[in-house]
Amino acid sequence: MTNILPFATHLNDVNGIIEGAPVLIQRTLRQMVGMYHDETATQQALQETDRLVYEVYASGLPEEDGHILYCTTIIHPGTVGDEYHMTKGHYHEKRNEGEVYVGLQGEGYLLLQTEQGAVSHVPMHKGTIAYVPPHWAHRTVNVGKTPFIFFAVWAGDAGHDYATIETQGFPVLVVERDGSPVLVDNPRWQASGS
Amino acid sequence: MTNILPFATHLNDVNGIIEGAPVLIQRTLRQMVGMYHDETATQQALQETDRLVYEVYASGLPEEDGHILYCTTIIHPGTVGDEYHMTKGHYHEKRNEGEVYVGLQGEGYLLLQTEQGAVSHVPMHKGTIAYVPPHWAHRTVNVGKTPFIFFAVWAGDAGHDYATIETQGFPVLVVERDGSPVLVDNPRWQASGS
Repeated sequence: MTNILPFATHLNDVNGIIEGAPVLIQRTLRQMVGMYHDETATQQALQETDRLVYEVYASGLPEEDGHILYCTTIIHPGTVGDEYHMTKGHYHEKRNEGEVYVGLQGEGYLLLQTEQGAVSHVPMHKGTIAYVPPHWAHRTVNVGKTPFIFFAVWAGDAGHDYATIETQGFPVLVVERDGSPVLVDNPRWQASGS
Repeated sequence: MTNILPFATHLNDVNGIIEGAPVLIQRTLRQMVGMYHDETATQQALQETDRLVYEVYASGLPEEDGHILYCTTIIHPGTVGDEYHMTKGHYHEKRNEGEVYVGLQGEGYLLLQTEQGAVSHVPMHKGTIAYVPPHWAHRTVNVGKTPFIFFAVWAGDAGHDYATIETQGFPVLVVERDGSPVLVDNPRWQASGS
């Protein structure tokens, strides 16, 4: 395994930036076409301008067994049609790996599902510790008016499987109704094998 | 493995308490006899009264492969002789497992060593992310006047080996000199196999 010496860095819990940490992901709306249920709203928004939906600052540690990786995710506020800004979401490539989230700023939802059809969600705000058990896919959603920022920690060999969610989506959507977040069934939901 | 459903709790980053979390450890000075280099000072302190040195609030999650565990540690301020309050310290039973620390309150030092004789230390305060790489034993020390509190995350199957540190100690001590923390060689240090 890669030999890493002890080190320290600094987490800014106001803006989510980890000192010296590389930006691992900067996902714009153009890179998320097909993820939001309202394709027309997606295309209309893109005709005006592309927009940054979320960013991830990662540890830079090697994705190897034995290392414990961490990152911050910043989901900028906004909606696409009636659907709140969200991450793509993923299963761990190695399904039997959990993850710990800590809310730093803003208001969010953590959406979860299993391949056996279980669905769950957890509201998150500053100070919330949310647990993603092994085998649960996870997506986060900004349901507030300010950036939703959280810290995440997981095992170095967990890996990321984005493709399954890109194909199937999530069984539920988080949409805005009268200014508040509501969970609704995803009309395009394609359960595995259906 | 134990089936755990997604859940959320709340981390109080002022006092380190995790809502609903069991107290895993409450270590008093009497339980740490022999850990501080000044045995006379330890015994004198105990003749007056026992004292709480540190406490750990843990997730309660099962110590199994795939789960990601977390806790907060609260080291109360104080010295035994000239040596600052500290945790016992441990290697992971499964040596090839790292850990992530996040400083929440107060001023601390993270001390680290390997079985190959490497030694390191990392100052910690609010917002510090400190990385404990695989194979490094880790002990934390409160070098301030207020509780030193940090959040830790590690793999469920890492385990704890306290016995090696109980026998060998750490190669360095953190002592108070003119009101400030200084690292000095541990006169009682017993390297493995020596």
